[in-house]
Amino acid sequence: MMQRTSLPLLLLLFVASPLFAQPKSVLTKTQIETAKNLINSSIESNEGFNRLTDLVDTFGSRLSGSQGLEDAIDWIAEKMKSDGFDKVWTQPVKVPHWVRGNESATLILPREKDLPMLGLGGSIGTPKEGIKAEVMVVNSFDELNERSAEAKGKIVLFNVEFTSYGRTVSYRVNGAIEASKHGAVASIISSIASYSIQTPHTGTMYYQEGTKKIPHAAITVEDAHMIQRMIDKGDKVVVQLNMEAETLPDADSRNVIAEITGSEFPDEIIVMGGHIDSWDVGQGAMDDGGGCVAAWEALRLIKETGVRPKRTIRVVLWTNEENGSKGGLEYHRWVKENEKSLDNHVLAIESDGGVFDPIGFGFTGSDVAYEMLKEIGTILEPIESGEVRKGGGGADIAPLMKDGVPGMGLIVEGEKYFWFHHTDADTIDKLDIEEFNQCVATMATFAYGVADMEMRLPR
Amino acid sequence: MMQRTSLPLLLLLFVASPLFAQPKSVLTKTQIETAKNLINSSIESNEGFNRLTDLVDTFGSRLSGSQGLEDAIDWIAEKMKSDGFDKVWTQPVKVPHWVRGNESATLILPREKDLPMLGLGGSIGTPKEGIKAEVMVVNSFDELNERSAEAKGKIVLFNVEFTSYGRTVSYRVNGAIEASKHGAVASIISSIASYSIQTPHTGTMYYQEGTKKIPHAAITVEDAHMIQRMIDKGDKVVVQLNMEAETLPDADSRNVIAEITGSEFPDEIIVMGGHIDSWDVGQGAMDDGGGCVAAWEALRLIKETGVRPKRTIRVVLWTNEENGSKGGLEYHRWVKENEKSLDNHVLAIESDGGVFDPIGFGFTGSDVAYEMLKEIGTILEPIESGEVRKGGGGADIAPLMKDGVPGMGLIVEGEKYFWFHHTDADTIDKLDIEEFNQCVATMATFAYGVADMEMRLPR
Repeated sequence: MMQRTSLPLLLLLFVASPLFAQPKSVLTKTQIETAKNLINSSIESNEGFNRLTDLVDTFGSRLSGSQGLEDAIDWIAEKMKSDGFDKVWTQPVKVPHWVRGNESATLILPREKDLPMLGLGGSIGTPKEGIKAEVMVVNSFDELNERSAEAKGKIVLFNVEFTSYGRTVSYRVNGAIEASKHGAVASIISSIASYSIQTPHTGTMYYQEGTKKIPHAAITVEDAHMIQRMIDKGDKVVVQLNMEAETLPDADSRNVIAEITGSEFPDEIIVMGGHIDSWDVGQGAMDDGGGCVAAWEALRLIKETGVRPKRTIRVVLWTNEENGSKGGLEYHRWVKENEKSLDNHVLAIESDGGVFDPIGFGFTGSDVAYEMLKEIGTILEPIESGEVRKGGGGADIAPLMKDGVPGMGLIVEGEKYFWFHHTDADTIDKLDIEEFNQCVATMATFAYGVADMEMRLPR
Repeated sequence: MMQRTSLPLLLLLFVASPLFAQPKSVLTKTQIETAKNLINSSIESNEGFNRLTDLVDTFGSRLSGSQGLEDAIDWIAEKMKSDGFDKVWTQPVKVPHWVRGNESATLILPREKDLPMLGLGGSIGTPKEGIKAEVMVVNSFDELNERSAEAKGKIVLFNVEFTSYGRTVSYRVNGAIEASKHGAVASIISSIASYSIQTPHTGTMYYQEGTKKIPHAAITVEDAHMIQRMIDKGDKVVVQLNMEAETLPDADSRNVIAEITGSEFPDEIIVMGGHIDSWDVGQGAMDDGGGCVAAWEALRLIKETGVRPKRTIRVVLWTNEENGSKGGLEYHRWVKENEKSLDNHVLAIESDGGVFDPIGFGFTGSDVAYEMLKEIGTILEPIESGEVRKGGGGADIAPLMKDGVPGMGLIVEGEKYFWFHHTDADTIDKLDIEEFNQCVATMATFAYGVADMEMRLPR
């Protein structure tokens, strides 16, 4: 990088640019024209959305260890080859293999009622006869600690109001550990959902060495509130929980990778993608089939421009993000082993927040790089998706970012994301082709821009 | 009525009122003051909403023939007695007794997937081994007629876009009849829903003499669209349907009735209510526990004013509106038998559209009466719920209205009504105490106004 443009000069150009009448642009007029064509071709295409629809209708949900996931990976790799990318390959990854089996939760007292539920990913099952126990409801870990003596032998229900995913997801992730510490026989949570039509949400959960494993499941927001009201008015609440869930030996899966080799700096890589696995409900359309196909379609449209960018653009569809992140970890390990180091990873781009109306990207990296990306973002002004905010990334690129690779995550209008997240309703009909295409345009523009600009994006 | 104020004079006063500087008001200043107090006490009360919550949490769904319905009726009658109304009684009604049993729908081809479903009320079950057949999808009865030859031996899926309830519900009601005519072995519909998070909606359906009965069920909008896409791209779709549904001999139920006897014209009756039964999913909070408790609470608050209106106000919570309307029919029959005729039924008021933010009432009756009601509506201006529109009524008051009783139905902001209608998500948390209280105020104001005004509301 230093051979081409010195960092101090870059700093002058981008950070101190107000001092100059006309800062040097990161892209030439021709390159900007190419990016604009890329936006137009993204907006006008049906191909990406059709592929996404085909993918999710044909293979459905794609949990790690399932045949559906592997069939989907084969289908994608085959189609990527027919797209004529310079390289297409799959990368073996060992992944956790959790299976749900049959499951149910039934309110027994004060009256019998079926409780729509989903076991949480990684949970153990119940004994064959199930677990029937009185329910203790708490609104926080603190409350559980304060009322510890009451938890023994009970099913603890964490009825925590959704404020943000970050603030409430710890009850899904750590609920079983905390409930078990206090002697509970099982734990259930109010689904991590910003809106519900009696919709249970699954997701990953953890156990802790030294703490007894207990079954852990999600019921709906509606039923959690109802149980809270019943207990508040003095009713004894008893629930029967039956879960066949179990964890099998690790299974074989793969990351799917396609790339266009750079014309001038083929070793310098812009990596971009999403995760191809999903939970075992719905179609994984939003989480994250959409991110995968948007990245793939962006690469296809870059290829279709006929312009070969200076640097390599590599699309990776990581496997097993949902319950292990083994795909992201394996990619990181593989790069370090096979490409010597991460030094040549110029930028990592991830989309895993749904392919709704895009706003832009959240970026983690140097201020100089931030200013350069902001300039690329201006090309997206006509579709209002070029904003670059400070801070951002994604679960699959986190291992790269931890080792210094600049990373960015697509930001979209996510109002309804947690209506469908990890539910049977994460289906293609929740997505809109125009919004999806704008996501493609946004990813394509940044990937192309960074890949083809004169200077390497500085760390 | 004619003894008190002649109709021609009324016409002059209300229809031709612009000719006069100051038309005679239907209510005195004192009466308007009472109505305003009634609005205030409605708005400030927690009692109605607490009762509604108790009702739906304690008894849950209340399908005709279920113990839950009869227990709920007992509980209401008991509480009404403790409210100290002048009369409280229940009226025996024979009701259809349909039971759902276990049921499931599974996509077998092109890939296996559980299809969330609800059998439609009144449907027969499948044979024990279920029905496994290829699916034929149509978008209208016309399309089914045109493609009649293809239907034999198939499961017909009516995938009809929700436009309005009125325009799409005929596929739920008549789908089995039409599919059977063309030789189908079962019929399924896309749920009658304006929005879905993989939510199946149940509801009533009919058979027709001379046409073979076939099972009839609803799947989700998402899955109906998916099956449509699969068939459109050439896939053969096979579904396995298992339903234990059956219709048992008619069961015993009751209408619940409470009244405040009029001080001057006790034989003249303003009847007001909703239906106490519900489908066997959710809590029947919106449909129609809310309407029932709002009418009941309105009566309680009228009583609490200490003012005894001139005419009798009778609250009726009709049973079996959902799958037979036997409660409304029996009430109509009973009035004609026990109170000689319907001549003394001054006005029938129904709330069965959800107790969301109220707009006012839709009224069916004479223009003179309409003008009088509009004037009463002005008292509700502070809470913007006093609009009176032409046309309106309800299923349970329809038999009365058919015989000439003026009728009106509460109109609310119903944007989300068909998100929850006949689903497991018709739960108390979908309602808002402030909106509920405004519904109480609106019903109370009109009921009190018509009951206490000098002139009888003309037909």
